[in-house]
Amino acid sequence: MAAPKRPRKPATSKRPAKTWGSRFRSSTHPLVEAYTLSLPVDRRLWREEIAASIAHARMLGRQRIIPRADATAIVRGLEDIGREIAAGKFPWRNELEDVHTNVEARLREKIGDAAGRLHTARSRNDQVATDLRLYAMSACDRATGAVRALQRALLALAEANRRAVMPGYTHLQRAQPVLLAHHLLAYIEQLERDIERFAGAHRRSDALPLGSGALAGVPYPIDRESVARELGFSRIADNSIDAVSDRDFAVEFVAAASLCMTHLSRLAEEIVLWSSAEFGYLRLPDAFATGSSIMPQKRNPDVAELARARTGRVHGALVSLLTMLKALPLAYNRDLQEDKRAFFEAEDTLLETLEVFAAMAPQLQFDAPRMRRAATANYALATDLADHLVRKGLAFREAHDAVGRLVQYAEEQNKTFAQLAPEEYKRFSPQLADAKVDLASALRARDAIGGTSPRRVSAALRRWKRKLS
Amino acid sequence: MAAPKRPRKPATSKRPAKTWGSRFRSSTHPLVEAYTLSLPVDRRLWREEIAASIAHARMLGRQRIIPRADATAIVRGLEDIGREIAAGKFPWRNELEDVHTNVEARLREKIGDAAGRLHTARSRNDQVATDLRLYAMSACDRATGAVRALQRALLALAEANRRAVMPGYTHLQRAQPVLLAHHLLAYIEQLERDIERFAGAHRRSDALPLGSGALAGVPYPIDRESVARELGFSRIADNSIDAVSDRDFAVEFVAAASLCMTHLSRLAEEIVLWSSAEFGYLRLPDAFATGSSIMPQKRNPDVAELARARTGRVHGALVSLLTMLKALPLAYNRDLQEDKRAFFEAEDTLLETLEVFAAMAPQLQFDAPRMRRAATANYALATDLADHLVRKGLAFREAHDAVGRLVQYAEEQNKTFAQLAPEEYKRFSPQLADAKVDLASALRARDAIGGTSPRRVSAALRRWKRKLS
Amino acid sequence: MAAPKRPRKPATSKRPAKTWGSRFRSSTHPLVEAYTLSLPVDRRLWREEIAASIAHARMLGRQRIIPRADATAIVRGLEDIGREIAAGKFPWRNELEDVHTNVEARLREKIGDAAGRLHTARSRNDQVATDLRLYAMSACDRATGAVRALQRALLALAEANRRAVMPGYTHLQRAQPVLLAHHLLAYIEQLERDIERFAGAHRRSDALPLGSGALAGVPYPIDRESVARELGFSRIADNSIDAVSDRDFAVEFVAAASLCMTHLSRLAEEIVLWSSAEFGYLRLPDAFATGSSIMPQKRNPDVAELARARTGRVHGALVSLLTMLKALPLAYNRDLQEDKRAFFEAEDTLLETLEVFAAMAPQLQFDAPRMRRAATANYALATDLADHLVRKGLAFREAHDAVGRLVQYAEEQNKTFAQLAPEEYKRFSPQLADAKVDLASALRARDAIGGTSPRRVSAALRRWKRKLS
Amino acid sequence: MAAPKRPRKPATSKRPAKTWGSRFRSSTHPLVEAYTLSLPVDRRLWREEIAASIAHARMLGRQRIIPRADATAIVRGLEDIGREIAAGKFPWRNELEDVHTNVEARLREKIGDAAGRLHTARSRNDQVATDLRLYAMSACDRATGAVRALQRALLALAEANRRAVMPGYTHLQRAQPVLLAHHLLAYIEQLERDIERFAGAHRRSDALPLGSGALAGVPYPIDRESVARELGFSRIADNSIDAVSDRDFAVEFVAAASLCMTHLSRLAEEIVLWSSAEFGYLRLPDAFATGSSIMPQKRNPDVAELARARTGRVHGALVSLLTMLKALPLAYNRDLQEDKRAFFEAEDTLLETLEVFAAMAPQLQFDAPRMRRAATANYALATDLADHLVRKGLAFREAHDAVGRLVQYAEEQNKTFAQLAPEEYKRFSPQLADAKVDLASALRARDAIGGTSPRRVSAALRRWKRKLS
Repeated sequence: MAAPKRPRKPATSKRPAKTWGSRFRSSTHPLVEAYTLSLPVDRRLWREEIAASIAHARMLGRQRIIPRADATAIVRGLEDIGREIAAGKFPWRNELEDVHTNVEARLREKIGDAAGRLHTARSRNDQVATDLRLYAMSACDRATGAVRALQRALLALAEANRRAVMPGYTHLQRAQPVLLAHHLLAYIEQLERDIERFAGAHRRSDALPLGSGALAGVPYPIDRESVARELGFSRIADNSIDAVSDRDFAVEFVAAASLCMTHLSRLAEEIVLWSSAEFGYLRLPDAFATGSSIMPQKRNPDVAELARARTGRVHGALVSLLTMLKALPLAYNRDLQEDKRAFFEAEDTLLETLEVFAAMAPQLQFDAPRMRRAATANYALATDLADHLVRKGLAFREAHDAVGRLVQYAEEQNKTFAQLAPEEYKRFSPQLADAKVDLASALRARDAIGGTSPRRVSAALRRWKRKLS
Repeated sequence: MAAPKRPRKPATSKRPAKTWGSRFRSSTHPLVEAYTLSLPVDRRLWREEIAASIAHARMLGRQRIIPRADATAIVRGLEDIGREIAAGKFPWRNELEDVHTNVEARLREKIGDAAGRLHTARSRNDQVATDLRLYAMSACDRATGAVRALQRALLALAEANRRAVMPGYTHLQRAQPVLLAHHLLAYIEQLERDIERFAGAHRRSDALPLGSGALAGVPYPIDRESVARELGFSRIADNSIDAVSDRDFAVEFVAAASLCMTHLSRLAEEIVLWSSAEFGYLRLPDAFATGSSIMPQKRNPDVAELARARTGRVHGALVSLLTMLKALPLAYNRDLQEDKRAFFEAEDTLLETLEVFAAMAPQLQFDAPRMRRAATANYALATDLADHLVRKGLAFREAHDAVGRLVQYAEEQNKTFAQLAPEEYKRFSPQLADAKVDLASALRARDAIGGTSPRRVSAALRRWKRKLS
Repeated sequence: MAAPKRPRKPATSKRPAKTWGSRFRSSTHPLVEAYTLSLPVDRRLWREEIAASIAHARMLGRQRIIPRADATAIVRGLEDIGREIAAGKFPWRNELEDVHTNVEARLREKIGDAAGRLHTARSRNDQVATDLRLYAMSACDRATGAVRALQRALLALAEANRRAVMPGYTHLQRAQPVLLAHHLLAYIEQLERDIERFAGAHRRSDALPLGSGALAGVPYPIDRESVARELGFSRIADNSIDAVSDRDFAVEFVAAASLCMTHLSRLAEEIVLWSSAEFGYLRLPDAFATGSSIMPQKRNPDVAELARARTGRVHGALVSLLTMLKALPLAYNRDLQEDKRAFFEAEDTLLETLEVFAAMAPQLQFDAPRMRRAATANYALATDLADHLVRKGLAFREAHDAVGRLVQYAEEQNKTFAQLAPEEYKRFSPQLADAKVDLASALRARDAIGGTSPRRVSAALRRWKRKLS
Repeated sequence: MAAPKRPRKPATSKRPAKTWGSRFRSSTHPLVEAYTLSLPVDRRLWREEIAASIAHARMLGRQRIIPRADATAIVRGLEDIGREIAAGKFPWRNELEDVHTNVEARLREKIGDAAGRLHTARSRNDQVATDLRLYAMSACDRATGAVRALQRALLALAEANRRAVMPGYTHLQRAQPVLLAHHLLAYIEQLERDIERFAGAHRRSDALPLGSGALAGVPYPIDRESVARELGFSRIADNSIDAVSDRDFAVEFVAAASLCMTHLSRLAEEIVLWSSAEFGYLRLPDAFATGSSIMPQKRNPDVAELARARTGRVHGALVSLLTMLKALPLAYNRDLQEDKRAFFEAEDTLLETLEVFAAMAPQLQFDAPRMRRAATANYALATDLADHLVRKGLAFREAHDAVGRLVQYAEEQNKTFAQLAPEEYKRFSPQLADAKVDLASALRARDAIGGTSPRRVSAALRRWKRKLS
């Protein structure tokens, strides 16, 4: 991290410019300064800090809690500071602890003592909760947007390969043929639930804490509704103690991110598998593969591997947050400062992963003929033989049993189903003689809702197309 | 575990009565039997298993996929089995792996070969997903009910102590006086969010997997809508691959339980603190305290301590589930079997904790006079002095600074605010001379939405009373 | 759980037979009884409980802290109880909370009031710590034994396949040929580190807490050395407060188990991969494969899948324990009771997994010809070409670059290395013309310590053979 | 992060200067570049990278694997680069992925094509494993040093307060009096175990991977012993596949750090409790307390709170690592890159916390009179009364029962033990009449090994003094 340039200290005091120093005789130990410093992490909240402070100052002015002229000066000063930060010109000072104090100290430099009125009727406890909730709402929106983009990319991939057939797997054993598009749509479904969870996290973030003071409320005639409106909150936190001590929304965001990353880890695993020589279903384009420093022939699926690994990072952030909150008495404790680090880590990891997957998905090149061959190998149509027997009147258990013995026989003979003679079939069940199972009919037959028949899958593609456009 | 009586083996086969054994030459290794056995865990799903099988059989009959007479026999047999299990008379057999096979094998004993038709058009993959989703929905309902009960108990406690005042804490330092009822309402708010999250988990559970087969759908003219209706699902899982491989709903339930337990751990911590000699706010009734085997004088808050510790158990279950799912390729893998253990452990821990807390809450006896004394000790009204100065025209920062120095002075003089003379006040700010701060006005002043004023807290109590009754 | 038969209540008291009840007026709430009950979990410690109590009683007698005759009676009574429990005839009573109280109450039934002297100079706090440390030491031994058994099984497998060659993988891409035995030895190395960690956990378990009383030590002339000797502890816990509040040894055991399960999850993943149709390296014997209820052709590697999933269970137990301990003040808190559940869960899962793997390993049947073919496919000898160029004087980077371009060319021509003509080689580097790379020489060349050359691998097999026998 | 200045691109290629690019037609996608970039994290390993490369180059020269002159040039170039980095003048280039490629590319700039020989007989897989193991060994040393410093600080604190008495707690209830020094020594014991665990992690780190190549060993006559000696490894990794895929040592370090942080969280909790108004045992010096932006009277124990919260960060890092490794097939996978981030995060958090605690401990000011008063309040000597009865011949259970009833009586009478008349004592047991229990004798009596008697505690202080000096 580049050390920010430090402005000269204010001349009026030798004590550190803390917002709380007056009762302290000696200054804070340098190791304590370093240990409690939150600026490198929380300066990311500057937009929210400025917006919330402006809304607060306007309200204080409107309610005549502070002089209107002071309110106006504060708002202008804050807008100015916002521009400074956006332009990368703000003199961040680590010795001022956090984003809140940095902004307020800078405001004092700009507008003088009127700045001291901004902190009327608020505390850092409700202030930081407000900033983080505003941030969380936008993070939910960003996550939702990035998930949507990946859904669209997967949908495009499914559409581009709508006729491709692959073996569906259970236990990583070839089970039954499915359409690749059907398989990809399963991920779109997973991602849709992620969006629902981010919506839940958004809902739980959406309540204004400002006005709760340190923990008990504030003794001023504040107007919380107008502040909420200005900031885009649709509700007001109803209990001041809860408002400053609640971090549910942060945990919930990270929990939603953990599950979303888990989904991506499953997709990542399949990309790794499919691009192995053994599967050979997938060729990663050069732009998404990496090589080896020693083995000239390698094409490695590093993006997928890293995504798989970084799932652990987000799970770890979730554990961090839950552990942090465990057994904390009410109301605010400094422990809560740790929320941001875990939150940002989860958010960054998730968004970067979603983005690189969305870029990679359209580039994936499938070896459709190879997948199709694999789809019928290894007796993958055995279930269809059993279903044939059921239609001939056998109970499913009998049918399953007969075909199981047939498979055992064929395997010992080292023959595929197609290579068996009718008499061989008959040995296991008379009705097997006229069984006709082939890939196309096996697919076509699975035509109930949710099934992999081309008709159903096409309908699903159309449905998602509408939904995602 | 009591060893269940074993019925005689079916005479027709020497192989184990697995549902899948026909292609295998030799039987399963005893260690494998033991390692893969899921019955002790999944037999808890018997109600769901019976219900889902009945709905499936009825549908198969209605759709003429199996003979109607067979369907009727199957349904009667299953109902009979349900009664057996409910009466504790069902002969569970570990060698039959799981609840599904136990029920189907028993059905065969009861109705003969027609039982073999029940498994038509389904697989254990969609079957177990259906059972667990049904179970998850009811678990969400149970959790919600238990949370509601605790909310009511806390509300009653708040109402019974509606005039009690305590020091509000930040950093476990006395901060500002609050009403005990206000503090307790903070927990009711937390619990309300838990209910919202259980509703989300319910929503994500509420989609019928049955009809997805092993992973690809089934080649029969099934009617999934009617099955969903009969079982109380409001949606049908739209993608068969997703339907058999998704365990989001389980993770989400356990994540909601983790956060709810975290809330309870915070309440538990406060019960431990408050019943210490040092705080002395709370006396645990005999029925909720435990003693020591060696120290005759002890009254220990064991319930609160165990609740605090068991929070870790639920967090652990969450980690188990997320780890289990990490990097699993689609669709079904046997790994998913582990979902139930973590789910049930989280559910049981949560429900037991909620119940014992709901029973304990009404019994908590507060030492209101002691809490009131503490509420104004340690300069807890210092903020009110600063707010007084603000009303006199000072900027908050100046006011905070002046009062900070006053506190430092008073502390060095070993005096309370009340013991300081007006001249001593004046030294720090002329306007401090006529400051009148007392507990009642400090409380009354925090009268904005969410504040701890008696008026606001009474309104909140009434609002919750309406909501919870 | 079968309800144990309940003996008639002792006639002398209507209060529950708690060891601490005399200062309590009313009895414990049934929900509290249920919530605090630890017997179903801690009765597993009965051997340790009996042994530690016998050693304690003998010492009390020797030191004349209690009458020698009472000590003798107590020891006989305890031995008798030990036999009862071993024979499954002990009347466990849930209303007596835990294993300690059950044993002591039974002792009173057997020998009368002298039983009341057993608890002299001890507390349940040092008692349970002693039991659990004794148990932990034996659990470390059991884990070590089970790991050794798996090492031996893997070694036998490696020896049985000592000539088998496979493609070594990085990024799941074929990288360079290796001996299968070399690959299997990598797991033996991992397991060896597990054993070292269990030894560390054993060392940290090996300190006698008994004699620490509730937390402060005991005011009796006890002889802790003799108790330690009798119980097999090599050290005495030096600080009574630490002795009753420390659970490091439990965390450390579970952490060691977590890492060991993680190793097994990697092996499990490879078993799953290798037994897929795509890899086809491995055929699971019938006794270790499972089938499908719907797909007659399936052979699923369920044991490996479950082992992979249960890794999460042990990780979850580790999180539970760490969360439990987080921020607990000294000394004993009831929270610590949760240690056993997590410990036993981790131990059971680990031991069962090790055992089933040790049984499965010797049965694994490799398709050596298929593996050998795969070992040279996909330009897996490209590194050897580059190394050839280095020996001809090129810098490695140049050599890597040349061979990289060669691979690209070959791939576009759809040719293997063997199918390229010398002129084609020369295009990329003149020295490539006479490159002779083949599988045998590629293997033989990697002959430095740790390499996969047959000579080195044979030596490693011999070394391990000596070590493990 | 400050963007490093970018040196002009090498003129010979338009492709990125990757070490593996020659077989790729198109360049890496920018999102992939960003996603796979590890330089910001791994540049911390530059010292190890330089050292390991120098040792490797020297060995290559000695073994005549590369020309000696080239080896000499490489070593000088690397030394030069080491000086550049130390001086902050090294031109780090993100487009070069990682620390390894940056150093090698810079070497080429300095010494030309000879640089291309450095990568002979090694791969990034064994290279990064070597770097990280070297780093881990030094991290273990740093952790041990920082733990030792805290032990010394706690010992000094214990010595400075060697006569201070406090109530020992169980269940956060006052239990029995103990010496504060005894209580502090309990933490020194915990920390001693941490040191043992770091020694274990060091041992498992101490094996040289270099020479393992990508995974199979290298086809050159390398001399691994000399490299190990030069780098300070006492062992050589015996299996090349294990050597590149093992991250046990990283997990083990983070597990040890997790437990150490857990210990610190317990101490932190006590600092928070003790500096509360209710306990009032501890006054934080100004330099280690923080104030409130709104409440002028506050002195908050923020350092302790943050330490408590950051425990979760390290637990989270442990979960990340374990999750990352779960079910990874051998050998190297890109997933392993994530090891460093979790490792460094755990290390930094632990070291910073240990340091700030070591600085804070000597400054803690105890209110010894208050603690002494608390030590005998609340019938804390009840156990001593029971022990008195035992010495008079009662069985402990009877004695405990009698004193339990006495406590109940005294509580109802609102009297302390000292305020009860002899007749009142007699009502509960005749032998209670002459019981004389006081603080000094209660302490003195606990004189067995490990007890809190002043004699034992003094001896323990002396023992630790010797050990830590």
